[in-house]
Amino acid sequence: MLPVHRMGRSLSIVAVLLLFSVRLSAADSLPSWSDGPAKKAIIEFVEKVTKEGGADFVPVSERIATFDNDGTLWCEQPLPVQLYFALDRVKELAPQHPEWKDKQPFKAVMEGDMKALMAGGERGLVELVMATHAGMTTDEFDAIVKDWLATAKHPKYKRPYTECVYQPMLELLAYLRANGFKTYIVSGGGIEFMRQWTEKTYGIPPEQVVGSTIKTKFEMRDGKPVLVRLPEIDFIDDTVGKPVGINKFIGRRPIAAFGNSDGDRQMLEWTQAGGGARLMMLLHHDDAEREYAYGAEAKLGTFSNALMAEAIKQGWTVISMKNDWRKVFAFQK
Amino acid sequence: MLPVHRMGRSLSIVAVLLLFSVRLSAADSLPSWSDGPAKKAIIEFVEKVTKEGGADFVPVSERIATFDNDGTLWCEQPLPVQLYFALDRVKELAPQHPEWKDKQPFKAVMEGDMKALMAGGERGLVELVMATHAGMTTDEFDAIVKDWLATAKHPKYKRPYTECVYQPMLELLAYLRANGFKTYIVSGGGIEFMRQWTEKTYGIPPEQVVGSTIKTKFEMRDGKPVLVRLPEIDFIDDTVGKPVGINKFIGRRPIAAFGNSDGDRQMLEWTQAGGGARLMMLLHHDDAEREYAYGAEAKLGTFSNALMAEAIKQGWTVISMKNDWRKVFAFQK
Repeated sequence: MLPVHRMGRSLSIVAVLLLFSVRLSAADSLPSWSDGPAKKAIIEFVEKVTKEGGADFVPVSERIATFDNDGTLWCEQPLPVQLYFALDRVKELAPQHPEWKDKQPFKAVMEGDMKALMAGGERGLVELVMATHAGMTTDEFDAIVKDWLATAKHPKYKRPYTECVYQPMLELLAYLRANGFKTYIVSGGGIEFMRQWTEKTYGIPPEQVVGSTIKTKFEMRDGKPVLVRLPEIDFIDDTVGKPVGINKFIGRRPIAAFGNSDGDRQMLEWTQAGGGARLMMLLHHDDAEREYAYGAEAKLGTFSNALMAEAIKQGWTVISMKNDWRKVFAFQK
Repeated sequence: MLPVHRMGRSLSIVAVLLLFSVRLSAADSLPSWSDGPAKKAIIEFVEKVTKEGGADFVPVSERIATFDNDGTLWCEQPLPVQLYFALDRVKELAPQHPEWKDKQPFKAVMEGDMKALMAGGERGLVELVMATHAGMTTDEFDAIVKDWLATAKHPKYKRPYTECVYQPMLELLAYLRANGFKTYIVSGGGIEFMRQWTEKTYGIPPEQVVGSTIKTKFEMRDGKPVLVRLPEIDFIDDTVGKPVGINKFIGRRPIAAFGNSDGDRQMLEWTQAGGGARLMMLLHHDDAEREYAYGAEAKLGTFSNALMAEAIKQGWTVISMKNDWRKVFAFQK
């Protein structure tokens, strides 16, 4: 055995090294964030809730952070990625559906007439989703999504969609997890569409993805159990549905929530109402050069002026993509 | 700094101690299980899937184990615990509902007439649940459940229900978690009823509880967001609903599943169909002395003879409470 005084000395050296590495990682863990109010709000919040004995300390088990996906973690312009998936599926399935040639919304899709498609409103979009996301087993659907993602490319960036994810948000996810947080997606997107790639792309496993669901049905096929995806909506995880989804799937209230649109308002309200230290952030797309500008004032809708007014009133932090992010995508300089 | 050869030596000592403690814990982690086929099946399975480089190795992220709750983790006789909760709630709410005196199923509850209650079938029970589990906010319901559990006692054991949990299953949960498993409850019981106590009792956090749900609605009350519990069933997590619930909430297929009744059959089938090393176990209640005897052959229904036949055919392991468990409850000798 080592003499005790030597053991003590070697332990202190290890302790100093560990401390140093922790301090270093805190300073360096958000390199794509500019020094500014957004980065400051994140670091102050995390230091507060992780400080043992502090007034705002939160035990690890309650460190839940929820993230919207489209427009918060990855690019949702010019159209949401899952809609591109649906459009491609329609084209692929069209030979089996000659009747689609004269039937909306399919006719619009095949003619590339986005204006006619949007004119069909929510009803048309739901019909499109049902025709492309249902009627197969869950295993079959998972494979279809994976195959599509392996080849599909973003129209502007000419890269796989899973590369069109925001580098600063990847750093934020990792920073929160390094500080004991469980990171969740809470998205209006389809739960099973997201679960095929979120673990690899964001480090968020399937069981931490909350999203919209369609009904499934247990069946025996050739003596093997399968789950068949039915053309029937089970749950819409958007706007007032986000707190409902959080309560149903997670069963705990988040202490931090991140969104970018009117669809995230209730999630942020629900998070804030929990009391204690809370972090609510909204990403504002004001960067036409590196990404897109479609937030408040841009009159493109999903981040309305009313949401901006509420953010100011409630003290939520608005992240300016243009000013708060040094880098948007890993592939950009 | 320490001379390198001394450091190496002290590290080897630590390594030997660690190895010893790991071996010790593997042998000792299931002390309430008799040496027999059930214990053997558990240990063999866990060693197989955790052996790096082995043919049956499963990475930590995919080590999902699902447990039924009523009759698998805690006592469900003479009536399921949640039904006692509903009966007590009816009595407490009765003064506000004079009309219940002449209305089934409430009349039966107030007169203690279990026969009349059961005669009302599923419809009567659903009505009972809606009257007692809905109409309040989620926060209010959580407090009601916690208050009730703090004083309610099991009619036979005269102890809080949360003490009427099976000691061997607590050991099994801990043993699986020590081997990298994520342990889940997948129960027909109400999700929000269970989430109030599963973390403290089983070490299973709210986000790892899957159960039946009623619909909730986001509302603003006095400027504060609340979720109101509606008297409307959202999802029944039983029989064919268990694989559906697993797919919806977890999004991965379990590699181990534990149940005790016909309501668990599809969960075990779904688990087994995944391929690779799998562990499917059914607890057989054949111990009238220490607990209850109501399994197959006992003609009391929930573990039917048909289920026993399927267990044998499929190679599922049946746990005999009488023979495989040295101890049933921690409070028993």
